[in-house]
Amino acid sequence: MKFSDDELVARTLSGDYRAIARFITRIENNDTKAAALAASMRRACGRAHVVGITGSPGAGKSTLVDSMIRAYRAAGKSVAVIAVDPSSPFTGGAILGDRIRMNLAAEDPGVFIRSMATRGSLGGLARATLESVHVLDSAGFDIVLVETVGVGQAEVDIVRTADTCVVVLVPGMGDSVQIIKAGLMEIADIFVINKADREGALHLEKDLYSLLALEEFVPGQWKPKILRTVATSGEGVVEAVVSTQEHLQWLETSPQGASRRLAVVTQTLVSLIAHRALDEKLSGREELLNRLAQECVSRKRTSLEAVAEFFKKNGH
Amino acid sequence: MKFSDDELVARTLSGDYRAIARFITRIENNDTKAAALAASMRRACGRAHVVGITGSPGAGKSTLVDSMIRAYRAAGKSVAVIAVDPSSPFTGGAILGDRIRMNLAAEDPGVFIRSMATRGSLGGLARATLESVHVLDSAGFDIVLVETVGVGQAEVDIVRTADTCVVVLVPGMGDSVQIIKAGLMEIADIFVINKADREGALHLEKDLYSLLALEEFVPGQWKPKILRTVATSGEGVVEAVVSTQEHLQWLETSPQGASRRLAVVTQTLVSLIAHRALDEKLSGREELLNRLAQECVSRKRTSLEAVAEFFKKNGH
Repeated sequence: MKFSDDELVARTLSGDYRAIARFITRIENNDTKAAALAASMRRACGRAHVVGITGSPGAGKSTLVDSMIRAYRAAGKSVAVIAVDPSSPFTGGAILGDRIRMNLAAEDPGVFIRSMATRGSLGGLARATLESVHVLDSAGFDIVLVETVGVGQAEVDIVRTADTCVVVLVPGMGDSVQIIKAGLMEIADIFVINKADREGALHLEKDLYSLLALEEFVPGQWKPKILRTVATSGEGVVEAVVSTQEHLQWLETSPQGASRRLAVVTQTLVSLIAHRALDEKLSGREELLNRLAQECVSRKRTSLEAVAEFFKKNGH
Repeated sequence: MKFSDDELVARTLSGDYRAIARFITRIENNDTKAAALAASMRRACGRAHVVGITGSPGAGKSTLVDSMIRAYRAAGKSVAVIAVDPSSPFTGGAILGDRIRMNLAAEDPGVFIRSMATRGSLGGLARATLESVHVLDSAGFDIVLVETVGVGQAEVDIVRTADTCVVVLVPGMGDSVQIIKAGLMEIADIFVINKADREGALHLEKDLYSLLALEEFVPGQWKPKILRTVATSGEGVVEAVVSTQEHLQWLETSPQGASRRLAVVTQTLVSLIAHRALDEKLSGREELLNRLAQECVSRKRTSLEAVAEFFKKNGH
């Protein structure tokens, strides 16, 4: 089914699932008209609580997210999930494990679930994710969960644009050095030690407290929480959900929360500006880019010279 | 010790370690003069074989890289390593485990090792890494190894700009679905199953062959190799190094290799253009950005509207 642009906006604002799905597909396909339409929807914008969830592959994020959905639903909140999934064109983005979730969503009108795949590049995923969050926010969801697959810089950048960041860890996979390396200490509002019934959970918890002890917290600042869950049994999941709500409370009522929000928004804007600046720069200049690339391959230029030339031709 | 710009270039071209280190520090600090100097060095540029190495934290990449350095040295090649390390300001980038390498480098003039830390953003790391590769190439190293910590999109983008991409996997950490999710199938020229003495190595190998069997390879195309190593004992490491050399051979002598090189160079140029485009866009407009961010926090604008406004004010 096709929607006219007006219909698409009207139906999305009323929470129509197929319209929302279609809207997000258009955003994913880099449809600039859809981006403009998304920008035009102001109703209730900024109303959703955006919760980012990241952690190593294998930490049980998907299962945790499924349990969190149930906990939010039990508290009467509607939930949309964007699973940021840098999948390969090779599979077309069809990843195992999503079927369970799709069933969850199919059975409950208060749940919307969507995978967001990368098509190559550089900020494209960040932009598509942010615009989709905006659409889901406008559609009236109380909670938007943004879940990433990996813990790379791009994923950290995406999760960082959320109101509340949950970092999922698991005993025995990497140690605290890895946490630091992945830059997770800086972004975590809540640490969840999942699979906490496994050996090493206490050790990991102790490590986290030691790492936090090295940081200085001024009064009024949010001090990251450390929680233990067993997502498969649901143990600790309600506490995790309550912690996200406490964090939102802090964001909305304290001056420190307000400045945290400002930092997050600035990061979001820079990320969106970056993507658009690149689009502008490349638009209509594919031939020049291709010629310069050829010259690099044949060693006539270095890549740095080629970039200098690209900007010179642009009149910059 | 300080170098004049001319000295810096001359000493770098002659392979002086302190000059190279200083050069890379300036690049890391986003010193635009240093970037221009790097662009001016043309001697022997494009001579180095750039090998990217990525894989999950815990896969034993660092140990593998150390063993590979030894194998390259035994083959008479000089080796520079850039460890792309998204470390937190919290630790100042001082990560454990680097001491062993530093000793390796201190003892052997044919080895240069350097960590490249992120300072926040969006392509900054990619740019600094590429420019540093260029400096090391100009300084005359035969091999430049670019090693990443995580397997996020940003890391994949960085490794993708290498001539040859090595993906390190380890039995029992995640399965083939994770490999697909991380987009590693697309970029791997060589799969190394490290810690191959562990249970599950055969299973992982079988999985990889099944995944590769799903892809179509036209005659003349490079078919990713699958190797087993035990980096701690050195087992299989020479074979890994030989495979990187075979891949280089393919790149340099086949038409399919030439088009692969073109794709890589194009990706590199786009990445560099993206960073510079953002810098241009933000330069001198911090105040506007800050005001727009404030308006988003106070819900006067959505982030998408703020970005539209930012570009309007710019006359674009």
